[in-house]
This record gives sequence, structure tokens and C-alpha cells, in this order.
Amino acid sequence: MIIVLKPDASEEQIRHMVEKVKGLGLSVHLSKGAERSIIGAIGDEALLTSIPLETFPGVEKVMPILKPYKLVSREFQQENTVIDVKGVKIGGNEIQVIAGPCSIENAKNVLEVAMEVKKSGATILRGGAFKPRTSPYDFQGLGAEGLEYLKAAGKEAQLPVITEIMDPRDLELICENADIIQVGARNMQNFMLLKEIGKTDKPVLLKRGLCATIKEFLMSAEYIASQGNRKIILCERGIRTYDTETRNTLDLSAVPVIKSLSHLPVVVDPSHAVGKWSLVAAMSKAAIAAGADGLMIEVHANPEEALCDGAQSLKPRKFDLLMKELKRIANAVDRDI
Amino acid sequence: MIIVLKPDASEEQIRHMVEKVKGLGLSVHLSKGAERSIIGAIGDEALLTSIPLETFPGVEKVMPILKPYKLVSREFQQENTVIDVKGVKIGGNEIQVIAGPCSIENAKNVLEVAMEVKKSGATILRGGAFKPRTSPYDFQGLGAEGLEYLKAAGKEAQLPVITEIMDPRDLELICENADIIQVGARNMQNFMLLKEIGKTDKPVLLKRGLCATIKEFLMSAEYIASQGNRKIILCERGIRTYDTETRNTLDLSAVPVIKSLSHLPVVVDPSHAVGKWSLVAAMSKAAIAAGADGLMIEVHANPEEALCDGAQSLKPRKFDLLMKELKRIANAVDRDI
Amino acid sequence: MIIVLKPDASEEQIRHMVEKVKGLGLSVHLSKGAERSIIGAIGDEALLTSIPLETFPGVEKVMPILKPYKLVSREFQQENTVIDVKGVKIGGNEIQVIAGPCSIENAKNVLEVAMEVKKSGATILRGGAFKPRTSPYDFQGLGAEGLEYLKAAGKEAQLPVITEIMDPRDLELICENADIIQVGARNMQNFMLLKEIGKTDKPVLLKRGLCATIKEFLMSAEYIASQGNRKIILCERGIRTYDTETRNTLDLSAVPVIKSLSHLPVVVDPSHAVGKWSLVAAMSKAAIAAGADGLMIEVHANPEEALCDGAQSLKPRKFDLLMKELKRIANAVDRDI
Amino acid sequence: MIIVLKPDASEEQIRHMVEKVKGLGLSVHLSKGAERSIIGAIGDEALLTSIPLETFPGVEKVMPILKPYKLVSREFQQENTVIDVKGVKIGGNEIQVIAGPCSIENAKNVLEVAMEVKKSGATILRGGAFKPRTSPYDFQGLGAEGLEYLKAAGKEAQLPVITEIMDPRDLELICENADIIQVGARNMQNFMLLKEIGKTDKPVLLKRGLCATIKEFLMSAEYIASQGNRKIILCERGIRTYDTETRNTLDLSAVPVIKSLSHLPVVVDPSHAVGKWSLVAAMSKAAIAAGADGLMIEVHANPEEALCDGAQSLKPRKFDLLMKELKRIANAVDRDI
Repeated sequence: MIIVLKPDASEEQIRHMVEKVKGLGLSVHLSKGAERSIIGAIGDEALLTSIPLETFPGVEKVMPILKPYKLVSREFQQENTVIDVKGVKIGGNEIQVIAGPCSIENAKNVLEVAMEVKKSGATILRGGAFKPRTSPYDFQGLGAEGLEYLKAAGKEAQLPVITEIMDPRDLELICENADIIQVGARNMQNFMLLKEIGKTDKPVLLKRGLCATIKEFLMSAEYIASQGNRKIILCERGIRTYDTETRNTLDLSAVPVIKSLSHLPVVVDPSHAVGKWSLVAAMSKAAIAAGADGLMIEVHANPEEALCDGAQSLKPRKFDLLMKELKRIANAVDRDI
Repeated sequence: MIIVLKPDASEEQIRHMVEKVKGLGLSVHLSKGAERSIIGAIGDEALLTSIPLETFPGVEKVMPILKPYKLVSREFQQENTVIDVKGVKIGGNEIQVIAGPCSIENAKNVLEVAMEVKKSGATILRGGAFKPRTSPYDFQGLGAEGLEYLKAAGKEAQLPVITEIMDPRDLELICENADIIQVGARNMQNFMLLKEIGKTDKPVLLKRGLCATIKEFLMSAEYIASQGNRKIILCERGIRTYDTETRNTLDLSAVPVIKSLSHLPVVVDPSHAVGKWSLVAAMSKAAIAAGADGLMIEVHANPEEALCDGAQSLKPRKFDLLMKELKRIANAVDRDI
Repeated sequence: MIIVLKPDASEEQIRHMVEKVKGLGLSVHLSKGAERSIIGAIGDEALLTSIPLETFPGVEKVMPILKPYKLVSREFQQENTVIDVKGVKIGGNEIQVIAGPCSIENAKNVLEVAMEVKKSGATILRGGAFKPRTSPYDFQGLGAEGLEYLKAAGKEAQLPVITEIMDPRDLELICENADIIQVGARNMQNFMLLKEIGKTDKPVLLKRGLCATIKEFLMSAEYIASQGNRKIILCERGIRTYDTETRNTLDLSAVPVIKSLSHLPVVVDPSHAVGKWSLVAAMSKAAIAAGADGLMIEVHANPEEALCDGAQSLKPRKFDLLMKELKRIANAVDRDI
Repeated sequence: MIIVLKPDASEEQIRHMVEKVKGLGLSVHLSKGAERSIIGAIGDEALLTSIPLETFPGVEKVMPILKPYKLVSREFQQENTVIDVKGVKIGGNEIQVIAGPCSIENAKNVLEVAMEVKKSGATILRGGAFKPRTSPYDFQGLGAEGLEYLKAAGKEAQLPVITEIMDPRDLELICENADIIQVGARNMQNFMLLKEIGKTDKPVLLKRGLCATIKEFLMSAEYIASQGNRKIILCERGIRTYDTETRNTLDLSAVPVIKSLSHLPVVVDPSHAVGKWSLVAAMSKAAIAAGADGLMIEVHANPEEALCDGAQSLKPRKFDLLMKELKRIANAVDRDI
């Protein structure tokens, strides 16, 4: 931790600060510059973060040196984490494609899509039973009934399934029916939910919050990891910016950035990021070229009739074409799909 | 709802669209312009929002006309909502000041601050027992124990109390101990939590999410109202922007904007928005000048020792001076404090 | 300058870095921590900013300690700069109100508005002759002819006048006709223009760019100051964020932040920030409560007929009422208007 | 243009509005809905944009239907624009790579880099002579002398050259020495400069402003086109967001979005967007996968010694490796490079 002092900080104030830092068991380097003095606190930085050093008289600013996350950092673990979900390996050389409808509407539809995407090469089936909708008057998902349909479709198509959790009280039910738990962007800092998930050993796909920094994203993963569950898949799904041509702005440079900071696998959800099916293909290819370990793509047999997010869903035929294009890109970066 | 068609939309596509809209029981105005044709759908717009009209062939864009929220809108209720919390009226002519520590640390501290802020003119006591912290390694609050201390301090100082909820499983406990439930910025779109709170009749203070639009903010209030609870106080607390001089950017124009769109009271939390105590006074004054119905200010007897957000907390003496300045501003806009 | 080294930085890399810094004439503090080593470079930080220290092998990040601006900083000059424009003092205890039409449309209109705003208490007349419009097909201003009308109106109403410059080739013409040169948000980083203005001794009002940080804003002021012209007025006029309820988001906390960092006067333009006349009054009052030294408000006799930005213009009668309200707020913060 | 009226708009107000629109020569569709009435104005929308319809009593909001740009739109010209710069075709099937140093430092360095990047497959040489620097104390470029070095290096390496313009007074000089004029992000809305460039017939590369919407970006291109020059290359170079891990956020979905809206070629500058050389390769590959027509990459023989932006520059050897990887990606999307 570096503590920069104001130009007019008094000797008394500097002494007070130095004693405070030493009192916590850290050692101190005091360096008096021409314009400002600086205190370097050496030792366990975490001890200092709990103290509002900025409030001390004479302090101008405080700059942390170390990263606030540990278990999920590349420094803690050099090699990539590879998560095995019923034989599907996420984070290895093979790129995994998660596909399916935004929300589960009935048993028949989800099964049909499952069979289609399986045939095209998807390896995991997605489908929402509990839907976070901006409006209380929109379709909120089928709940427990939807989970059953999803589980059955996954079994029939021989695909592991993933579904979103919104309430810690649903955790047991979801763990029974799904192979991967999804935490949506709106719940990325629902810390109570993260802690509960951290106590299970289910793989979890954590979506980046709409305006979360990469540091905050990794801190939320750390919440899960700190409770024991290390099977975490990170998902970039677009951030909120000022532009309105796309629903959100897909931050693809987050992929190489996160992979340099963390050992966890990173997948990309282009469907939610752009919000228009016509842009999904281009951004899926770009995501793989940027180094993503997987994709999450919405597919619906009849987007016009979709109860949720139809505008961004691909029809099975378009998805099939896309998978062929993705194979070429994957090969161009020496990966399988 | 206005549906703008592409310049090259075919007659067949237009007919398909028109039939779809009519099939929902709405009437249609088709207007053929020089460059584009437009369909105006007249009737219950909510019926249309559930359909992904953008996916229909020939459609360029879809523009809703009506506001998606109802119960919380100024159109639904012309006069201001005034919420009575043990005799403290929020939303009326009197400006209410909510003050207290960020987190409850022990029985003694919260009582001391309660007595101080009461003396200076605060009318509601704040204090966090469950704390949403970015890091799992930071102080997470005293939980149920903290609630007891808060309740006791409020009773002693004769101030109603407010505290934050993070988990629907804590709702009963918090309702027993607090007079107002606070929903923090990170949970603004925790829809499960909002629904549960909507079923109680406790006053609730809903903070704007870090990157929530005003429309989304009002939609979250609508979630609560749709379940029956209309005692909702909205709180602007800063939004995330690119600038880093302040923790967040306090969006004060949100105050008059929200008051034009909704009948609900609006308070401002300058402490969290700016993150530095030295800026709290200026922004508190500005908030009242902009038309806020109240303020939420962090006060701590010894910010250097605060376990949370000490950097933005005022000492009781500074808070007392500020209250005197606020009185002058309130008078200048014909309000009491 | 603090240089944080990677955990695996080699001795050789550290030595290379230390030599580089010493070679520039700075002294070095090397501090070896448990997890990372840190190099503190003491001396003239400006020497180091020209070197891409981040590219050196073994370097993790580089953190500047000093502020990159000098002449405009509060450290360089403790007391507030007060700029005298024909007897109107900007930056002193008196709050100055700059008012007038967005663009000059003809001699009669600008004179009428000038007389009206003068009567209501405005002290400077604004009016655009060269207009930066997003579309090449929109009204671009009357140019030199407009400047004449503005000058004449100012003379008649006995108000100094301000107008915007967009091209260094217009500098002489504008200096002859106006008392203050305005640099618009889009030209905040038009460095060639800033340098030219810096060589004159005309007062200049510099608007904050739409997505400029406060640091960049002050650096642009430094460009002007570095050429010799210190008569700089800073103007906060809203920044671009994700919300769309207002044209831009007025960043009022920038007022106290800038006043703590710089000795220059700060004025606020609520009209451009919010883009709706109905919000201008609330934000004008808030700006003064936040500590602004002045306001810049658009007034038009007949906004419906305005050739530019009519939506945000006040009618003279509304402006007159507002001035009365502003007087009360100014008094509440011990200032005159 | 759709004009949405307030629920309480009077008959008189509606009549006033309708007459105004008709008076401009447009025809009117008045549609009275259950909750709101709507006026559809049919005809030349440009006539209406100059009128502040929002200020009319009874009006709630105004929604334009048509796009504000014409000459640069895909509707105006269906087929892609291909720009020929001394035989190098930008916008065709072949992807062009613009490479070179951020700033020209001396004759020798720029020539060395030119020969290197030519050998690796770059087809255009970049180099800055006039540098827009945030600080007035940073290296500002060699000016006219630098242009000579650039021209000589391009001639020797048989590469067309591109350089940035910052001041309309330099236009003639730059036209004599460069094959493509670059307008930087900070000058994207320097409308005077755009107009002057529009009067030449030099190819121009226009960079997206740091917080420009795609619509504004296309409007700036329209400024150039409206003066006669249609040889415009658009360049996405990252936008400003709240995240700080990268210098800016590369908005790759802008590539397919712009290509759907406009016929102009789109290139991507990953170097400035991310600001770190280690991320340039991943984002270059992603840009091509997303459909970019070209790349602009900074290359410097010795980034440690670079006078500008060394942190984001590739060494020639790394650039050479990258070109080989890009070839594979280009082939995977059926393009040459």
C-alpha cells in the first residue's frame, strides 16, 4: 500500500500515520520527495484495506499495490482451471458451445431445440426457468415445472444442462435438476446468493454485471471460491455504455485481460450483449478469435413466438450454419470445437 | 407502439405484421410514407411488449409510446405520496435527514451517534447490520446482533430506524427490528427480494442501481408496488461513469426528472455517491436545492476507526454545522427541515 | 512515480529499471515486499512520463504521484483567480449569470433578449455565431454577421459578450468582437486551437468535453495557461452517461472537486446538460448550492421558433422568475448575485 | 417523425401542432389512442428536425423515424465503397494492415520500421507528425520535418502513407506529403476541419470519437461526404467506459453494426483501444473475425525508447508473428490479407 501525503502534511500527521501502520504489524518505508512525502506499507495489505486511510489528516490519496482477489488469481494457480461437467471439459483446448432457448416455455419446445443444437455440435443445453425480467408484468418463467422439462430434454439429448438461479431458497431444487448453476448479471453482487453457491460443489457460470469492472467481477468469483467451490466459469455478456445501437457493448478485450489475471475459464454470451440475432454470428466468431473458452447462444425454433428475448435468438438452421463457421475460426487459433 | 418498417418491406410482410397486431385485439393505423411505412398499434401496449416484433421480417425498429410502469407513475396518481414513519413524514414539505453510521459496530457507538444526530436535527437513524461488501474478506456486518443494537439506539433516541436487507430469508427479522427496509443499489434488480418486500406493508427505501436508468429504477419500484406495498421511497446515490475523481457521479438531475415522472418521494445519499466526506456538504446543499425530499448521510464519531466507509463519514460536529447550512437552503426553496 | 514490479521480476530486470530512472537524474527507493518489489522514483516526475515504463520487462504497473497540471493547480496558486471582464468579476463572491440565445438569428432578436436578461440581472450576454452542429444539414450560424449583431446588442445593453470559436482562423475576428472566447465541449481537446488562444490575453471560457475526466479538463486549461493566458473560466456542462432521460448528466460534484484542485473559477451550464427547459431551474439552483461561481443559461424570446436548441431555452419571463429564486439560494450560501 | 402528445393535451394544442407540421409542407396522420394521441408527420423529416417540437405545449416526446445521414448510408448506396490508394484497395475482399510508429522520431527509425512492416505484409505506413497529446509538456511531434521523413520512408518501402491532421491550416502541407489523411478521435467533431477535408479528394481515415455514438460517427462522415469527398474510411478505436483495465473499450460489435448501416469501409485500431501491446494480437484477430476491412497497428523497433505510446507498440518480430496468425483468421472468414 502506498500512502501519498499532502504537500503541507505536518510532521505530527506523518508520525500519526506511520504509527498506525506499524501498529497493524506492517513495516514502513517513509520517502520524502521534493514535492510530497510517501509512505510505503510493507506486509499484509489486507490489514490496511479495512482502515479508511484517506480520512487521516495529511493524507492525499491511498494506492493499493496488490490485487484484492487471491484464490481466483493467476498468481495463486498458474495452470488453467478445467471444469468437467459430465464429461464436457470447460477451459481446456476444446471450445464448448452452450445453446438453447432463453426461457423454457413447454416440454416440447425445449426438447426440440435440444435435439437440434446437439446435432449441430452444441455440448451444453441452456434454458431459463426463473427469469429476471425488468417488468413485473412480463413472463417470469415456469419455475419448478420448467426445470423438469429442462432436465428431461437434457437427458433425452444427452446434454448437461444449465439454468439460472435468482433466490437462495431455490438452490436445492436447482442443484437437483441442473448440471451448472447460472448467476445472472443482475445478481453478480448478490453476495448472499454467491456465498450459498460457494458451499455446494456444483459448477457455476457467473455472468459479469452490467457495469462491473473486471476487478469486481473477479471479486464476486472470489466470494464463491472463498466458501470452497472452485468450479467457476466466468461469462462476459456485454457492459452498459452510452451507445444504443446494441443492447449492451460486448467487451471482448475482457477475454484476454481476464485470462491474464485469472486461471478460470471464460465464455462469452454474444446474444445478450448485442440483443439482435443478426449480429450474433460476427460476435461469436470474434469471441473465439479473442480467446474465449466457450460461447453461450440463444436458439429458438420460432423466435417470433418466443416469450422472452426472441429478438436475439437464432433459428436452428442459422445456428447450424454458424457452428460450421465457428469450426473454421477455432481451427485458425489451434482449438477444437 | 410504433412499428417502423424497412424501406424494402414487402406487402406480404406488412400484412403478416398487421394481422399479428390485430390478432392481439389492438387496432392498427398503417401509414405509408415516402421512404418508409409505419404501423401504429393502438390499444393495450403491454400485450405487444411480450412479442419480439423486431424479429419479424421487414421490421426495422419498434418504438414504445407508453411508459412501462403504472402504479408508481405521476399519471396514475397526481398528488405526491407522503409516507408516515412513526410520525416522520417523507415526501411532504418537510425535508427529512436520515443519518448514522455505515455499519453498526457495537451498541455503544450506534447509540452515541444516534443521540448526536438527533440533537442536530436528523429525524431517522440509519445503520447497517448486513453489509454488501465487494470483498469476501471485508467486515460483513454484525447481523441479527447489530439489528438489536440499532433498534435499542432508535428507541433511546426516539428515532425511527432504517437498515439494509440483502436476503429474502432475513425479511421477517428485519421487519421486526426496523421501521424502514433499505434495498441497496446492488439489489435494485433482485426481483425475488423486491416481490417479497412488496407483500409486506413496511416502508421501503429503494436505492438506484449503479448503472440503472431512471426507467429501470421506476420499474423496480413497480415490482414492489405491484405486490401491494406502495410505501416506497426512491434514493439517488450516484451512478457509475468514466470519471474517477469521485466514487460515483451523483446524478442530481434525476431528482426533478423522477419527481416529474412519479409521485413517490425522492431522497439523495451524497455520502456513497462521492465517497469523500469533504464533498458531502456541497452535494447535500445541492440536493435540497434540486428538490430532494430528504438526505441520507453517514455520520461516525471516529471515522478513522470505522469498519466500513470511514472515508465518506462526517464527524458529529461537522454534521451539526451542515444541518445549520441545510436549514438556510431549505428555507430558500420554501421548505422546512 | 511508483513502479510496481511483477512477482517474478528478475534481479537483472530490476537493475535495468533502476538504472533507467537514475539515468534521468532521479533518485530511487527500492523496497522489496513479501509479494512484490516497488521502485519509488523521487524527483521531477515529468521526466518519467515521457517514457513507456509499462513496457519494461518485469514491470506490472506504474502509478504517478504528482498531478500532471501545474499552472492551473491550487498548489501553484492558493487564492482564487478572479477574472475581470469590463468590470464584471468572475470567481469572486458575486455569482455571474451569462444568458442569451443559443444562436444569433438576427439583430433584432439578440438585442431584445439582451435587454430582457440585463433587466433580470444577467451580467454577460451569450450568443453563437459559429455553431457546432452534429448534422451538416442543420443551421450553422450566421458567422461574421452574427458577431456584429452580438457586439451591437452587448453595447446597447451594456453587457460584455461571449461567443464560441471553432476554428483558429477565426481567432482575430472573434477577439475583435467578443469579450470572452468560448471553447465548446467538442473542442476541449483541439490542442491547436487552445494553443492559439493561449497566446492572446482574452478571457476564455473552456467547456468540459462530453467524456473528459476532470484531470483531462484541467490539462486542457493547462494548454492555454502554458502559452501565457491565465484568464480561464472552467465550465461544467454535463457528461455523457448511459441514461437517456436528460441529454447529458450534469456532474455537479465536479464543482467542489475542481475548486479543490484548481484556483480557476467554475461556472455551470445547466441548459446544455439537461436539454429540457423544465429542468433548468432546479439544476441552476443546485449548481449555486454546490458552489459554482456562475451560470450559463439559454434564453430565447420564442423557443418554438429558435433555430437551435429551442427545447432547452427559457423564455425571458421564466428567466426573470428564476433569477429571483437564485438570489435566495445565493444568499443562503453567503454569496451575491 | 412521430410526435407523442401528453395525456392531457388540449384540442387547441393538438390543432396548433398539426398546423405547424402542415405549414412545413408535410402531411399529417393524427391517431387518437386510449391513453395518448399521436401525430405522424409524413414527408421530408429534415424540415422538422430544425424545429424544437418538444417545446410545444402538449407535446410529450418526439421520435424521428429516418436516419439523419444520407450519403454515407447503406440505403443510399447498396454496394460497398472500395477506396483505391495507390493500388491498395480498402473495403474489398482483401484486408489491409496499416502499420508503423505512433510518432515519427527521425528519418532513420521510420524507414527501418517501414521496411520491416512491408516485409511482414503491411500495405500502408502510418506515422504521426502532429501529435494530439493530453499534456502540453509532452512531445508534440516533429511537424513538417516529420512529414518529409514519412514520405521518404513510404517511397523507399513502396507503401502509401497516412498521417494525422489537427489544424485546417496544415491541410495543404499534409495533402502534399501523405496519401491518406487521418482525423483523430479528438477531432471527430471538429466540423471546420471535416468540411475542409471534404473539399479535397484525398482519402480520409476518420476515427470514432472517444464517446461518439455510431450515429454521431456516421454524421461526421456525412460532413465530409456532404462537401464532395466520398473516400472515407471509418476507424473504430475504442470508446470510453467505466472500466480501467484497458485504456479504452474496443467496441467490436460496431464493425457489423456500421457495415449494416453504411457502405463505407471499416478498420479497427486495437493498439489505441487497449493501450497494452500484449492484448493487441488477440484483438486484431477478433477484429478480422468480426468483419473489419483492415487494421491499424503500432509498431516500433524499440518501444522502450518510443517518444509516444510505447506501451502499446509491437516490436517488428511480434508484428511479423501476428501477421502470420492474421492470415489464418482471414482465410477462415474467406478473405485475403
